Amino acid sequence: MPLTILVTGGAGFVGSHTVLELLNAGHAVICLDNLCNAYGGGAGSKLPESLKRVQEITGGSVTFYDVDIRERDELRSVFNKHKIDCVVHFAALKAVGESCRIPLKYYQNNITGTSILLEVMAEVCLGWACMRKHANEEPVIFYFKAGVFKIVYSSSATVYGEPQKLPLTESHPTGSCTNPYGKSKYFTEEIMKDLCESDPRWTVVSLRYFNPVGAHKSGRIGEDPNGEPNNLMPYISQVAVGRRECLRVFGNNYDTPDGTGVRDYIHIVDLAEGHVKAIDKLAGGTISGFCVYNLGTGRGYSVLEVVKAFSKASGREVKYEIVDRRAGDVAASYADVSLAAKELGWTAKRGLDEMCEDTWNWQKNNPNGFAG
Amino acid sequence: MPLTILVTGGAGFVGSHTVLELLNAGHAVICLDNLCNAYGGGAGSKLPESLKRVQEITGGSVTFYDVDIRERDELRSVFNKHKIDCVVHFAALKAVGESCRIPLKYYQNNITGTSILLEVMAEVCLGWACMRKHANEEPVIFYFKAGVFKIVYSSSATVYGEPQKLPLTESHPTGSCTNPYGKSKYFTEEIMKDLCESDPRWTVVSLRYFNPVGAHKSGRIGEDPNGEPNNLMPYISQVAVGRRECLRVFGNNYDTPDGTGVRDYIHIVDLAEGHVKAIDKLAGGTISGFCVYNLGTGRGYSVLEVVKAFSKASGREVKYEIVDRRAGDVAASYADVSLAAKELGWTAKRGLDEMCEDTWNWQKNNPNGFAG
Repeated sequence: MPLTILVTGGAGFVGSHTVLELLNAGHAVICLDNLCNAYGGGAGSKLPESLKRVQEITGGSVTFYDVDIRERDELRSVFNKHKIDCVVHFAALKAVGESCRIPLKYYQNNITGTSILLEVMAEVCLGWACMRKHANEEPVIFYFKAGVFKIVYSSSATVYGEPQKLPLTESHPTGSCTNPYGKSKYFTEEIMKDLCESDPRWTVVSLRYFNPVGAHKSGRIGEDPNGEPNNLMPYISQVAVGRRECLRVFGNNYDTPDGTGVRDYIHIVDLAEGHVKAIDKLAGGTISGFCVYNLGTGRGYSVLEVVKAFSKASGREVKYEIVDRRAGDVAASYADVSLAAKELGWTAKRGLDEMCEDTWNWQKNNPNGFAG
Repeated sequence: MPLTILVTGGAGFVGSHTVLELLNAGHAVICLDNLCNAYGGGAGSKLPESLKRVQEITGGSVTFYDVDIRERDELRSVFNKHKIDCVVHFAALKAVGESCRIPLKYYQNNITGTSILLEVMAEVCLGWACMRKHANEEPVIFYFKAGVFKIVYSSSATVYGEPQKLPLTESHPTGSCTNPYGKSKYFTEEIMKDLCESDPRWTVVSLRYFNPVGAHKSGRIGEDPNGEPNNLMPYISQVAVGRRECLRVFGNNYDTPDGTGVRDYIHIVDLAEGHVKAIDKLAGGTISGFCVYNLGTGRGYSVLEVVKAFSKASGREVKYEIVDRRAGDVAASYADVSLAAKELGWTAKRGLDEMCEDTWNWQKNNPNGFAG
């Protein structure tokens, strides 16, 4: 059944790819974004560039609001304009390094922002009626409340902290995060858990992403980080395209097959499809309370394996140098993905070669990202 | 040296007793409170009743603002009116049961509120100057920033979760809190830790209270909980004064000498003196970063020991009945208090009998609290 879905942070990397798959699945999509980390599309444009391209690719249409989730009144007015069935909540800051430098910015955006979103969702009021029996009587006002209590949350494998056991299952302890970004994801999950325990009307699906990479097949949308990329794949691809000199590989003395860090990379389109499946599940009403699913492939690749696969996909050499380990990095992290397979009917289909090919296709067609 | 100290939540139980001791120590005190859990003092009154009485007792004077710390602009204007040296931050919601029913209210008040306070403290601007060389030149504006980077935080032994080892030292692991109130205290400590790591100008003293009870010797100020008390001592004292029928004791099969729960009760005046010592230390500049001290006596008393001591102090029978354990309660909790003794030069001086006498003195003179 087609739903009306509000997507916060819809102009970003994961957001735009998910909006695309939601449109493909026949849903109506309302997007919010404060554009703090997305290309606005130039003066006079009503849509950020990523969503313009999503419309071109799908032939569908997105309603967009340039709204910050911390602006309670603006958020309310969006909920009052549309009859929203459920929310997919991406809006958050995500740069680990910046979070260590300006922690309050991260806590305000990610925790306060989410709390305000959740409060506004619960309060949604679709209208009111005013009744009185006699003209001289005090009127009684009835509000038609229609809170929205279904949300998919953009969480992260970072909530597991240092893995005590691999692969990481959803029951692995959370907390012990080493940076404010990670803590903000962990705290937000705890807040949502408490909310579900306090009020049975809520259903939260928290999706713990491993390492999203790749781009849509069209090469029209992809990851477009501001400044120096924080993550491996966009860094490699900027080296391959000549925007950056050389990749720094942080440590080659980890306890892994080739000594470099091992991560569970997942193709962004697989990830986006996971969100569509999560919404089907949410809308189906067969789950309730706070539910968590890992979204990964279940297979880890080392930094050097990714470099090699990217060289092959791009036909370019990717220069790298080995430097010291980076504080807070773990040797290896990959998901147990059986729960999402069983309960959501979702499994990642795209392998490392396809991740690299699609990243390269996006990069070479958009060497400077959305700004062109 | 006399300082100008901003006290948030200054009209409450711990707040008002601390304001009293700060005035006694010669400091100037500016108070904020949104009065959500304090008696306002009636129409037209400029001071909440508790602070009126603090002024009577001390002969000092308190500047009061009816401000919610989540109101950024109002908060800013207080910082712009006074040259504040440091902040003592009590403002928070503290009812465990309510926090389970309305978690977002707790996260918004306690976490968002604290984050806004910290941001406003760092931003304080004492004035500006406008300069230009020629009349037709664009002016350059200089702001005189004078951020306040010293704060004493009202934390709680609840951040330790279930004790793994007794007595509880400050290095005991934190987290694993079982309710949103406790989590909000724990999360706030983590946020403050991150803040101190991000910016060396900050010094935070987090005081982890054990179980504050008692009242000022005068019997003019004391604990005045709204509705049914959440804590043992005010409950006992309302039974003794005839406001409530019977005390319910939650479990008598714990692994403690008499089977009832053991807690580290601390006299409110000792606790308030601990804050004065913490401010001396803060102002002295010999500490930096995020510092934590337990405030307790280091000695635990069981529920039945407290009941007995209160009966003796009040000369009244305290009726009680044993009922089932309450979820989330631990058998015993008491502090290692050596760190505060060593670094702050502070030790609790008042014993259980004095705690009960002073509670009773307040209760019998104010059977209905501040409302009279």
